[in-house]
Amino acid sequence: MAQPQIGVVGMAVMGKNLALNIESRGYTVAIYNRTASRTEQVMKDHAEKKLVPAYSIEEFVNSLEKPRRIMMMVQAGKATDAVIAELLPFLDKGDVLIDGGNTFFEDTMRRNKELDNSGINFIGTGVSGGELGALQGPSMMPGGQKEAYDLVAPIFEQIAAKAKDGAPCVTYIGPNGAGHYVKMVHNGIEYGDEQLISESYELMRTMLGMSVGEIADVFADWNKGELDSYLIDITADILTRKDDLGSDKPIVDMIMDKTGNKGTGKWSSQNALELGVPQSLITESVYARYISVMKDERVAASKVIDGPEVVTDVDKKELVEKIREALYFSKIMSYAQGFEQMKVASEHYDWDLNFAEIAKIWRAGCIIRARFLQNITDAFDKKADLNNLLMDDYFKEISEKYQAAVRDIVALAVKSGIPVPGFSSAIAYFDSFRTPVLPASLVQAQRDYFGAHTYERVDREGSFHYPWYEEQ
Amino acid sequence: MAQPQIGVVGMAVMGKNLALNIESRGYTVAIYNRTASRTEQVMKDHAEKKLVPAYSIEEFVNSLEKPRRIMMMVQAGKATDAVIAELLPFLDKGDVLIDGGNTFFEDTMRRNKELDNSGINFIGTGVSGGELGALQGPSMMPGGQKEAYDLVAPIFEQIAAKAKDGAPCVTYIGPNGAGHYVKMVHNGIEYGDEQLISESYELMRTMLGMSVGEIADVFADWNKGELDSYLIDITADILTRKDDLGSDKPIVDMIMDKTGNKGTGKWSSQNALELGVPQSLITESVYARYISVMKDERVAASKVIDGPEVVTDVDKKELVEKIREALYFSKIMSYAQGFEQMKVASEHYDWDLNFAEIAKIWRAGCIIRARFLQNITDAFDKKADLNNLLMDDYFKEISEKYQAAVRDIVALAVKSGIPVPGFSSAIAYFDSFRTPVLPASLVQAQRDYFGAHTYERVDREGSFHYPWYEEQ
Repeated sequence: MAQPQIGVVGMAVMGKNLALNIESRGYTVAIYNRTASRTEQVMKDHAEKKLVPAYSIEEFVNSLEKPRRIMMMVQAGKATDAVIAELLPFLDKGDVLIDGGNTFFEDTMRRNKELDNSGINFIGTGVSGGELGALQGPSMMPGGQKEAYDLVAPIFEQIAAKAKDGAPCVTYIGPNGAGHYVKMVHNGIEYGDEQLISESYELMRTMLGMSVGEIADVFADWNKGELDSYLIDITADILTRKDDLGSDKPIVDMIMDKTGNKGTGKWSSQNALELGVPQSLITESVYARYISVMKDERVAASKVIDGPEVVTDVDKKELVEKIREALYFSKIMSYAQGFEQMKVASEHYDWDLNFAEIAKIWRAGCIIRARFLQNITDAFDKKADLNNLLMDDYFKEISEKYQAAVRDIVALAVKSGIPVPGFSSAIAYFDSFRTPVLPASLVQAQRDYFGAHTYERVDREGSFHYPWYEEQ
Repeated sequence: MAQPQIGVVGMAVMGKNLALNIESRGYTVAIYNRTASRTEQVMKDHAEKKLVPAYSIEEFVNSLEKPRRIMMMVQAGKATDAVIAELLPFLDKGDVLIDGGNTFFEDTMRRNKELDNSGINFIGTGVSGGELGALQGPSMMPGGQKEAYDLVAPIFEQIAAKAKDGAPCVTYIGPNGAGHYVKMVHNGIEYGDEQLISESYELMRTMLGMSVGEIADVFADWNKGELDSYLIDITADILTRKDDLGSDKPIVDMIMDKTGNKGTGKWSSQNALELGVPQSLITESVYARYISVMKDERVAASKVIDGPEVVTDVDKKELVEKIREALYFSKIMSYAQGFEQMKVASEHYDWDLNFAEIAKIWRAGCIIRARFLQNITDAFDKKADLNNLLMDDYFKEISEKYQAAVRDIVALAVKSGIPVPGFSSAIAYFDSFRTPVLPASLVQAQRDYFGAHTYERVDREGSFHYPWYEEQ
């Protein structure tokens, strides 16, 4: 067996699967886990693989080819700092440490800077695709020193998912925290996609009275068209599944309507707020998860607060198509906001992000993979400095065409008492974005009135304050 | 002249006005400003007042009655830390430092803790009401050591605004950062109120084609009813004002439609995201400000992206009333969210907030003062542990009654291409809150499918994972 060309720290399922993925490409992989028994188990389960177990950090580090490449697949946060502190005494200048966890990008920026002082390279990489993706080919978003990335690029390109055109779903994203940042926005977008799918489902269920099975067929059908994507695909699959614990109901009806979260969507919204980017659809999706968790409050409220009757005077086939168009329209708004956020971040953090490349590596492997990512790739290929997705011909035309559907759907849902925060924020964004004069002038006037915050004028340059309190 | 019972650091307009307010209640006030000329100017303008100028920190501190009461009215952030560092060597145990700036509550928590180690009391207090409020009577939200608050309470109660029933608009909010936290939520709510007013204005303007003067009359009329409030009042006033620079247009038409912000609304949304509270209306209002600032992008987009025709087949009088009801309904949702946020924060930070008291001190002096705050006061007086405003009879009944209006307004606005993110998020919140079963189960199923995140079931306790990948 060759000397290990790379080592993986952390043998929980993501780390183990990633190690097996790397090994499957012909590499010898050193593995280490804080609890030795887990390493032993991996060796027992995969005795035939080119895995080299280590039972101390020193042994692990010393086993590796130089410059060393070490991938950490441990819990984000303190655990990551602890592992870095343990590794550091044994590392040499030029070694490459890689954090493949779901790390907050500001932590990655800090670690990259601290380690750079010791001459250690630090790559923070987003890894999307879940457990299966880690094993078979994830989408990877690495950020850090470019020269360090070049040392791991051959491995990353082999283990990453491949798009239809054969391109590996990995690219150098940018310095320090850029990779984890882009992964964070990816996850925010994922929240948005999931929220929109759930609103579509609810409309079919509640307004059209469709069975879960019928809705599964609709999603399967949608997956053949422009909505073709992993999340639509698994939704169709989920809706065909029966309860595994004995009832004859669909499993979706047995699952409690509380959506958890691991914080990445929240981070992405908090950062949009920080950078001044209107990222309303993702944020509404985060809030929708929060309100879902308030189950007891909702049940109590439902017993005392009256709502309207659901509108039923609708044509089913026509409405299903409108929901499809509303979903695609809203998805476009969400991605327009997400890419806008990355554009502002790229300038703010000085990362020089390449948006065509980002769209390209999301085409396969990751949770938001979709045919539609090819359209985004094309848009940025055509115009690298595209200001907003809505200014690209394809997206502009689709939005114009589908806006009538989303308007109808929002109106119907709101009149029926069905919450559609995702669809609503999508159309509000679209309309705000294409409105040349907003009533924001009135708010600015209010701010000047009570706080002397001043305002700009439409007819000349400068900053003005109105004599609100002087005699007229 | 008596020995100064209190000192004010920072003679910008807020500090100066607050010092004059205190002085007007019979106190002698020491004043200090980093730049001496400003202090000299205050003394020149107010030679007859019981103000004692100081031109060094030492002189300023030594001039004060003990235990010393020092109010800092300086810029939030580094300036505040700098002033504290300058003051500290001259202070004695038991002295009370007060920060009246728009400080981020976490900074106040940190400072309170640091100073407590030196035996110095630290009060962080929200002060709302703008320049005029500072002079004539603001609403004040002080947090810090209770015994320290008791030392300043007599002064604060005299300088604060008085509600109709004579109660001063100040109360002890809670330990450390509680005061600045409540002020932050107050400001977030203020963003929401302003956004809703601007949406109402836009609907009258664009959908009903009303003149600015006509709309002024509507707001003046609304101000006589349940919407009676400072912001509605000044809106009516603003809309009567003509351009002060020569054109014969209303000033609101000459003001650029870009709304700035000083960060408090943003903080409040970021914190709601952190605490897991669905605070969508305020957040949409923050985003509405952000998109307003993207003026060039909007103008460019408006030239190429087509929207729908505005619906004009409406009855003006009827629609104006519906807008009024939608505004009041949405305001209720926003406050329900804001109070929900404070409830969660109270538990999270262990502050034991008293919501009836908070509503009470917002009845006068502050920017969001309104008749409606009496209804909130009553709701919490009736039931101190009220779970959500919507569970109070008054608010439940009003929401039920006005929901038809907001549904019509959102439907009409969305069909007309007029962005109403505030109204839309209000109705989405209402409908989510009163929906016992949300499609969140589908999202949780997706999360379990790709990430093995597990789920709860509706029929038994525990955490479950579905065998998605096993042969069926």
